[in-house]
Amino acid sequence: MKRNIDVCLSPELIGLYDLKGKIVVVVDILRATSVMVTALANGAKEIIPVATLDEAKSYLNKGFLCAAERGGAQVEGFPLDNSPFSYMNEEIKGKPIVITTTNGTLAITKSTTADQVLVGAFLNIQAVADYITKQDKDVIVHCAGWKGKTNMEDTLFAGALVELLYNSHNLACDTAHLSLKYYQSVKDNLLETVKNSAHAKRLNKLHVIKDIEFCVKQSTYDIVLILEGKKLITTS
Amino acid sequence: MKRNIDVCLSPELIGLYDLKGKIVVVVDILRATSVMVTALANGAKEIIPVATLDEAKSYLNKGFLCAAERGGAQVEGFPLDNSPFSYMNEEIKGKPIVITTTNGTLAITKSTTADQVLVGAFLNIQAVADYITKQDKDVIVHCAGWKGKTNMEDTLFAGALVELLYNSHNLACDTAHLSLKYYQSVKDNLLETVKNSAHAKRLNKLHVIKDIEFCVKQSTYDIVLILEGKKLITTS
Repeated sequence: MKRNIDVCLSPELIGLYDLKGKIVVVVDILRATSVMVTALANGAKEIIPVATLDEAKSYLNKGFLCAAERGGAQVEGFPLDNSPFSYMNEEIKGKPIVITTTNGTLAITKSTTADQVLVGAFLNIQAVADYITKQDKDVIVHCAGWKGKTNMEDTLFAGALVELLYNSHNLACDTAHLSLKYYQSVKDNLLETVKNSAHAKRLNKLHVIKDIEFCVKQSTYDIVLILEGKKLITTS
Repeated sequence: MKRNIDVCLSPELIGLYDLKGKIVVVVDILRATSVMVTALANGAKEIIPVATLDEAKSYLNKGFLCAAERGGAQVEGFPLDNSPFSYMNEEIKGKPIVITTTNGTLAITKSTTADQVLVGAFLNIQAVADYITKQDKDVIVHCAGWKGKTNMEDTLFAGALVELLYNSHNLACDTAHLSLKYYQSVKDNLLETVKNSAHAKRLNKLHVIKDIEFCVKQSTYDIVLILEGKKLITTS
């Protein structure tokens, strides 16, 4: 029997969805979940996503490697920023990394009543789709958005995942259809489209255009991130 | 100078938008705002949208013509339902009509901090666009959705209005782009698309397929509905 796929367009709306028994895929393309995928693909031991700066600070004081972003920019006092290129070096190998961001980590902490919480990005989208097709569970894509509002790039990821799962999953509701049609209408021009997103415009001021180019590349990494307790680890 | 158009995809998110000084266009295609447009186009004096059944009952007890819908179906004890075809008769001419629905009337009552609150439907979309282009104000389309979730048909209306205003208004944020591309990807097949919406499926069980066909017709009526105090009246 075909399973269902649904899309939640904002963390502000996730309370309207029943997550029990389902797989939730949290996505924050620019840049939290892209960073998490990159870090684990490059040898970090695990990711500890936390919702607040206070939690991150307490980890920092214990000597953890910590990344903190608010409003797109690195928070003062934290050694790591929210660029995937900061997670491609020897320093992170084998180490846990604590991350708090404006939207992505909040979306993760709001998803924990699900049976499984995955973290997805264009960078590992095929691996996420392959993993899901091996499960017998309904799926909800949880778009992190921007401060509660729906954004372009996370909705496009949702649409791309709906397309990959189209043969194994029914569209549970209108937002799955909306995301799919939106993605299909721009997918041949994905980078240029996302460069015009509201968040890309915010990031451009921070000179991180190469981050955007990197974050819309599809299936660079063949790993799946799953939440185990409070930690994201890779699974197969 | 070009003005901005933005789209709010759920009444649950409207608190994230600053409505001051702006025109808000509330839309609930299936069927609240389509009914309101039809009723005023067919001679009703004014619409009094109320959020709760209790408010509607108090009007009913005073002898007002009242419509009440919850979950797509007419509420027992109220003489009028939520079908546009119920508002094309002599009985309504010259009379105020009180309406409460699951989503649409709530979206109206949540929009009242705006400078102007319009009610839009495909049935009067060109008139709404023409009215807006004569104003020098930013616009927010407020999609009523379904019990807080984003739905197909209201998002498609938003996209259609963005298309009509594309030359006079900049896209303020990602949801305006999303709505526009979504609408453009299905507009040649609008009726068939909306027939597959989640709410159309709910309504099909209530045998109101002809309502859906009627509600996606564009610009049947050349009137604009604006909120004056607590009443929707026509303006030019």
